[in-house]
Amino acid sequence: MRMRKLPWAQDFLKEQEVVVPDASALAGAWKQTLKRAELHVEIGTGKGDYWVQMAQKYPDIAWVGVEKNINVAALAVRKYTQLEQQPDNMLYIQGDAEVIDTWFAQGEVDVIHLNFSDPWPKKRAHKKRLSNHAFIARYAHILKPDGEIQMKTDNSALFEYSLMEFQEEGWRLKEVSVDYRREEHAEDVITEYERRFLEKGQPIYRAVFVKNGKEKDAPFPEK
Amino acid sequence: MRMRKLPWAQDFLKEQEVVVPDASALAGAWKQTLKRAELHVEIGTGKGDYWVQMAQKYPDIAWVGVEKNINVAALAVRKYTQLEQQPDNMLYIQGDAEVIDTWFAQGEVDVIHLNFSDPWPKKRAHKKRLSNHAFIARYAHILKPDGEIQMKTDNSALFEYSLMEFQEEGWRLKEVSVDYRREEHAEDVITEYERRFLEKGQPIYRAVFVKNGKEKDAPFPEK
Repeated sequence: MRMRKLPWAQDFLKEQEVVVPDASALAGAWKQTLKRAELHVEIGTGKGDYWVQMAQKYPDIAWVGVEKNINVAALAVRKYTQLEQQPDNMLYIQGDAEVIDTWFAQGEVDVIHLNFSDPWPKKRAHKKRLSNHAFIARYAHILKPDGEIQMKTDNSALFEYSLMEFQEEGWRLKEVSVDYRREEHAEDVITEYERRFLEKGQPIYRAVFVKNGKEKDAPFPEK
Repeated sequence: MRMRKLPWAQDFLKEQEVVVPDASALAGAWKQTLKRAELHVEIGTGKGDYWVQMAQKYPDIAWVGVEKNINVAALAVRKYTQLEQQPDNMLYIQGDAEVIDTWFAQGEVDVIHLNFSDPWPKKRAHKKRLSNHAFIARYAHILKPDGEIQMKTDNSALFEYSLMEFQEEGWRLKEVSVDYRREEHAEDVITEYERRFLEKGQPIYRAVFVKNGKEKDAPFPEK
């Protein structure tokens, strides 16, 4: 997501308790810190709608948002601070997921969410895609053995690339949809960002990749 | 494809040399009969546009068309008979692919094509889908070790179902596209049937599944 520079972003992020100044200091202690048994991490929160809404929808899960762009991160965190009541199951990391394996201990994370990640369409930029095999190796490290990636995108080329990359890394496709909103998914939320695509009639692609071949229970508790 | 009854269909099919009266009698001898080194089988030809056009485009490959519906099969074969010149690399089977493993010997087929197969949307009809695991087992039997299935469909639910079924049967996804006509594919043909979907702006889904994990050369010779 391209963003203009926000002069207040850096200072604002430093002042907010929800923002973790040194994520690696919490490695191995995220669940304990948030007093939750399950840890979900969204990489690339954009303006934070999904992170905020899912944390409210699933208060028994610890939700950590990650965003590289400092200006976008500031908007996401501001969204949190402007809530009438701040949920106590949320933390935020402003930083580059290239080093995500230093922020979380091995096997610490239950589910990673990738929503509408930057497609980096140019072939030579493929290493920057969040579903590049180098990123997948980092996810494999921090996810629990039957942990999973839940991915949504509007970009057909990124989706195809991701299906191939995860397969090549030996992950199992647990769920796949080439038109996710064809059916209702009450377990999920639709952000304003996603709604723009829906209003244009564009399909949403979604896949769930599991680190190993074993079956796993539904990632979200029944409501 | 639903079709009205054509009173002439049965007699017509019996009279045409391109139609094989007892396919199992040719098991193991298709390539020899058609004097070609490579054998492609299209299951569910519909009115035969793909079978006819691909056989003309790739004259060095043996092309066998299969269709269950006798009326549709008659239209496909009529398309062949009405060609100015009948290619000598084509044969046709009117019959139910449920017994395809009796028509071809083990490992005899190089590529199977599934184009716009009936999606059988009702869950209880899933056994009729041509990408059901029982059909996949038959394909595995007649395909050579690195043989492949090339599948195209306009139906998102059938596509998702197929991705899952082939994975569960241990096949490797070699190629995948959720919008195949986003790019030009000179190696393929676009039938009138497909063009109707394209004109409505509907995406074409395509996948290539390989029986085992080994890499294979492109299925079509370079033109």
